[in-house]
Amino acid sequence: MKNSKLSVVILGAGNVAFHLYKSLRSLETITLQQIYNRSKDNLEVFKYVETTTLIEDIKEADLYIIAVNDDVIGNVAQKLKTKKGIVVHTSGAKPLVEVAMHTNYGVFYPLQSFSKDLELNFQEVPVCIEANSKKSLEQLNLLANALSKKVYHIDSKQRKSLHLSAVFVNNFSNYMFTVAQDLCDTNNVPFEILHPLITETALKATLQSPKNVQTGPAKRGDKETIQSHLEQLKDTKHKDVYKQLTLHILTYYGNKL
Amino acid sequence: MKNSKLSVVILGAGNVAFHLYKSLRSLETITLQQIYNRSKDNLEVFKYVETTTLIEDIKEADLYIIAVNDDVIGNVAQKLKTKKGIVVHTSGAKPLVEVAMHTNYGVFYPLQSFSKDLELNFQEVPVCIEANSKKSLEQLNLLANALSKKVYHIDSKQRKSLHLSAVFVNNFSNYMFTVAQDLCDTNNVPFEILHPLITETALKATLQSPKNVQTGPAKRGDKETIQSHLEQLKDTKHKDVYKQLTLHILTYYGNKL
Repeated sequence: MKNSKLSVVILGAGNVAFHLYKSLRSLETITLQQIYNRSKDNLEVFKYVETTTLIEDIKEADLYIIAVNDDVIGNVAQKLKTKKGIVVHTSGAKPLVEVAMHTNYGVFYPLQSFSKDLELNFQEVPVCIEANSKKSLEQLNLLANALSKKVYHIDSKQRKSLHLSAVFVNNFSNYMFTVAQDLCDTNNVPFEILHPLITETALKATLQSPKNVQTGPAKRGDKETIQSHLEQLKDTKHKDVYKQLTLHILTYYGNKL
Repeated sequence: MKNSKLSVVILGAGNVAFHLYKSLRSLETITLQQIYNRSKDNLEVFKYVETTTLIEDIKEADLYIIAVNDDVIGNVAQKLKTKKGIVVHTSGAKPLVEVAMHTNYGVFYPLQSFSKDLELNFQEVPVCIEANSKKSLEQLNLLANALSKKVYHIDSKQRKSLHLSAVFVNNFSNYMFTVAQDLCDTNNVPFEILHPLITETALKATLQSPKNVQTGPAKRGDKETIQSHLEQLKDTKHKDVYKQLTLHILTYYGNKL
């Protein structure tokens, strides 16, 4: 029954577009019609679907997924003005109204760190959806549930706070790993020794509440160890980070130095 | 051949002692003789081995593993003065000389975050060893290799830097997760939406170099998003952390605001 399939066009050729393409083309309920990108760059990885660089060649579809950089979403959405399908963007930072020039519109935000060279099981990726109408939301819901086991109805304000939280969870914790790697390099210690601790730290934060599994000298209020660590840190930037975060953790758990 | 087995006594009843006990008693090359702890508290979990709270009852053994709090290691080591076996401590922060009142001594530092209620495969725990003599090191090496696939010869200076790095990798990244959880709670968003991102962030930092997988507004030098995030952050402590880490990441990757 071809008519019951949802036809989809993806706009963009970045990491999110690539993983959406990989997952969507395996779904029987979806017809992935086309990938559009303004330049030919990156389009060669989309081997099993029609691609185009011309706005005027974009086909009619039930759903247009705009997976481009935040600052050009509005621009791309504008170019789809004549289309009748639902138009959604995939950004965590941008509100629903970014695509409000359409009759049916929404947001389809997959919250994960995507890389082209890393396999990813989309069924495990949380998908946050929002739409302008009940009908649009139903369609998005169908798609989201076909792609992932983890679908959430999240409004623009909530999504904005998730996007900000993701900076702490991903960007800032990765910077902590980077500082540790620098410390290891400086002291001729293989960084791989810390790999199992990195993995276990993440695991614990998902099995229990992170605030309940905090450990270390700042949590204990262990002045002696904190002092010894500060003396070890030669790089003033690393020392600043250590000082500030230690102070915050001390305060958070009611300790004083 | 009973004589070829290495006999071991563990001193302490905390998380490290517990996981050592669980792994050691399954090894055929080891005779786990006894667990000592100064109080009866926590000793009941050591069901399948003799326990004691009396220093004078501690048996002769080839190896004594002191797995107590850092500040009482020297004290416990002193109490083993009459013993002939190798005496080691398990601390990342303390140097080899902490147990140097013995003839044969060393350090056996398993670098992982241990909890009694979480299963752990000791074969995957990096074990950092150091000893005062070739003979002691050989014995420690035998034990370490029986327990884990990941054995490293690490001197006191290197171990100190690993212990400091572990604060960044574990304590500080867990605090980032805690801030994110607070932000989610404040905005009525289930924190579990971030779980897969936490896990993926850790995975990526172990598959590639963390400094090469950094992403986000600070890495990109994306002023607009940074400004929007700062406006969102109402808690001055969270704002301070965001500001400082963003500034450090900007500098690290040669960006300016």
